[in-house]
Amino acid sequence: MSAARLKDSGRRMTGFLLVGAGLLGLCLQAAPLAFPAQNLPYEDIAEKIRTSGLRAEHAYDLLKKLTGQGPRLTGSAEAAGAVELTRRMMAEMGLETWLEGVTVQHWVRGVEEAVILIPGTEKNPGLGISALGWSIPTPDSAITAPVLEIRSFDELQKAGPEAKGKIIFFNHAMDRTFSDTFRAYGEAAAYRARGAAEASKCGAAAVIVRSLTLRVDAFPHTGMVQYDPRFPRIPAAAIATADADRLSALLAKEKRVEIRLRLGCQTLPDVLSANVVGQIRGTDLPDEIILLGGHLDSWDLGTGAHDDGAGCVQAMEALRLIADLGLRPKRTIRAVLFMNEEFGSSGGRDYARAARRKSEKHLAAMESDRGGFLPVGFGVGGTSAILDRLKKWEDLLRPSGILWFGPGGGGADVSPLAAQGAVTMSFIPDSQKYFDYHHSALDIVEAVHPRELELGAIVLAVMAYVLAQEGI
Amino acid sequence: MSAARLKDSGRRMTGFLLVGAGLLGLCLQAAPLAFPAQNLPYEDIAEKIRTSGLRAEHAYDLLKKLTGQGPRLTGSAEAAGAVELTRRMMAEMGLETWLEGVTVQHWVRGVEEAVILIPGTEKNPGLGISALGWSIPTPDSAITAPVLEIRSFDELQKAGPEAKGKIIFFNHAMDRTFSDTFRAYGEAAAYRARGAAEASKCGAAAVIVRSLTLRVDAFPHTGMVQYDPRFPRIPAAAIATADADRLSALLAKEKRVEIRLRLGCQTLPDVLSANVVGQIRGTDLPDEIILLGGHLDSWDLGTGAHDDGAGCVQAMEALRLIADLGLRPKRTIRAVLFMNEEFGSSGGRDYARAARRKSEKHLAAMESDRGGFLPVGFGVGGTSAILDRLKKWEDLLRPSGILWFGPGGGGADVSPLAAQGAVTMSFIPDSQKYFDYHHSALDIVEAVHPRELELGAIVLAVMAYVLAQEGI
Repeated sequence: MSAARLKDSGRRMTGFLLVGAGLLGLCLQAAPLAFPAQNLPYEDIAEKIRTSGLRAEHAYDLLKKLTGQGPRLTGSAEAAGAVELTRRMMAEMGLETWLEGVTVQHWVRGVEEAVILIPGTEKNPGLGISALGWSIPTPDSAITAPVLEIRSFDELQKAGPEAKGKIIFFNHAMDRTFSDTFRAYGEAAAYRARGAAEASKCGAAAVIVRSLTLRVDAFPHTGMVQYDPRFPRIPAAAIATADADRLSALLAKEKRVEIRLRLGCQTLPDVLSANVVGQIRGTDLPDEIILLGGHLDSWDLGTGAHDDGAGCVQAMEALRLIADLGLRPKRTIRAVLFMNEEFGSSGGRDYARAARRKSEKHLAAMESDRGGFLPVGFGVGGTSAILDRLKKWEDLLRPSGILWFGPGGGGADVSPLAAQGAVTMSFIPDSQKYFDYHHSALDIVEAVHPRELELGAIVLAVMAYVLAQEGI
Repeated sequence: MSAARLKDSGRRMTGFLLVGAGLLGLCLQAAPLAFPAQNLPYEDIAEKIRTSGLRAEHAYDLLKKLTGQGPRLTGSAEAAGAVELTRRMMAEMGLETWLEGVTVQHWVRGVEEAVILIPGTEKNPGLGISALGWSIPTPDSAITAPVLEIRSFDELQKAGPEAKGKIIFFNHAMDRTFSDTFRAYGEAAAYRARGAAEASKCGAAAVIVRSLTLRVDAFPHTGMVQYDPRFPRIPAAAIATADADRLSALLAKEKRVEIRLRLGCQTLPDVLSANVVGQIRGTDLPDEIILLGGHLDSWDLGTGAHDDGAGCVQAMEALRLIADLGLRPKRTIRAVLFMNEEFGSSGGRDYARAARRKSEKHLAAMESDRGGFLPVGFGVGGTSAILDRLKKWEDLLRPSGILWFGPGGGGADVSPLAAQGAVTMSFIPDSQKYFDYHHSALDIVEAVHPRELELGAIVLAVMAYVLAQEGI
């Protein structure tokens, strides 16, 4: 079906181009950038963007460059390097670029080690662990304490005083029966985020939390812990799912298991970092902005290829595709690579504050922060009337994989712009594999497929260009 | 959106089950298989199937078992082993099983080697090649001949007598600008299928054909060659894309390159093999059949995990999901693992002939032969009225990933049933990665994602069950 449609629109375009090329022959020679694509129907422009993107798969080259910089933990030297690198990459694309300062936190990982102590044996098997972001270090270099396995907050409440002085092992698995894996993540992430606070309330010494992935593997998947100021902060780490299963099986046979946990992480003074901005200025309404964004910072275990290198390079590649086809949008199209999504989203908040100060008018703000997988949909914030207005562009995006527009747009970085009237939108790729890689050493460029990544950039380019011409 | 819907239907189902469980308490104890799911709305049955499938990811276990048998080249001992194995697997699921004899071709691969001979150097770089199915061996154990690079049949026609005595190197790449990779495959496959015949017409000695993949890699992707009885058969092999690029670059600098090609493949006498059938007999209309099928044979370079182990295990798993939930379809639901799709589809033709002989009435025949990737759609053969009737089930399948029903169903194995009134349907998963693996050593179980594979089985189970209850 889509193949037939593609062929038809290809024929129509060829005809148009032949006529167009004849009329515009001289003009083309004088100014090669004033490509007649500008005057084509949107359907044909979308096909040009798609064809040009799929031919070069340039987003993948951008991602290799970005991840080649190493992990981009907020506040790190590598994150600062990525700011310079991506600004340079966008300048080389011919975009107008600048940095907007953001004050960011600076947490660093140190040594990390966990060993199981089993009474009556000499074997002390190691556990694959990784400190959660914000975790305090273990006091006196290590904690040795009995382990209490807990599967839910209800179970913790029942355990009550039994938790005192123990290392609480939150073994709450993501629910694999949800076809939307983000739904499973949303539910299970409470144990990573709030587990330490709830355990501390009961007097626990530390927590280790089952990693948030649907696969059983040997890689810890880190993420943020949120302490509760009313209770002492205690060390918190993620444990690999394979090790969580092994530890659980051991505890079923032998209750007197202890763990020696050592975490050397620490929080250093705040650092000045930046959001990186690149744009194509609008020809008619330059003050009205269509924003595409991802976050530049990443976790430190892999190189943040899916999370959110993909979103960053898709935003950059979308602008490159538009610029290289010589398209001149009426409104400004802007890529923003937000700093510090993982440690509290100060980049998104600071960007919105600056936009208000500068009286900038953001019509739409699209976020790509769900990995570089196959495009399937768009979430749209705001009223159902807005959703209906955007739905009319579904057919344009269908050949690139987008099959629906639905309610619920936004994301950590662009949501603050909603208060200033922007329609916030989320680019939604397929979710089946995202948590296989998320926040772990597996999140590397080799886990990204060049065509899937590019299709996302194509979808964002088409959507941004059409909104820049038509408004919302 | 789908998350909210899921939650709603979850609530409804819980309520129903509590009431149902109260009323049926005794009944459940007496006959645990008479699960009340039978009486639930289809939406809830679909959710039960989905939940049960995603929890166990059993299709992947089936695929590991099947591919553990090795490659299943038509006529081989491994293919015969796979017939026994899959019949046993279906019998162990409690299905009614049998074999239907199919006479199949028996082509075997032998030694294969290609070396570049560059005048004036001692270096003789090797090329990654693999004989095409049906290829004759090289005479006198090897052919050494000059190479002529050809990018299209037009170019071959222009070359004319220049091709005489040469090894024709068809270097026609799949068009990566098509978002539907099957469209790119369909166009480029002509050079693999007809290249040898066209080259032979010009007096060529042999052909090597650029592999049909969008990736540049070191793995030859094999497939069928179709000889033309009017011209001599000449040896034919696929060449890895990375080597095709290397050879092309070399030829641009140095025209006098020769290749020494050695292929030891041969065609042996026909063999008796079988289609493998498993079914759940319908309670009310057992003579009306809903068929699910894939092909059991594979190429011999990998282990045919995506092509078409995936389709086979999805058909088996779909029946298992239905049976294990205690669902009792009104019409018969049948899984058919067709033999010999790759060497001429005699399995599909023989199955249809036998069905006609037995006066079996196939209402629908669904084929899964596009890999074990994320479900996206269903192709439906026949009139647009039939398509419209099936479209009404879209919402049932949406939470498992299916987003559209479109025209154009069928496939090599089930198409012969269309003449007997069956609605032929194609299960359509995402196509972006299929040709990364297709017909190459990369097509192994590790290239399949357990959740994506299972979602396909779930979609087929839901569709088959609903059609078994409702007809078309």
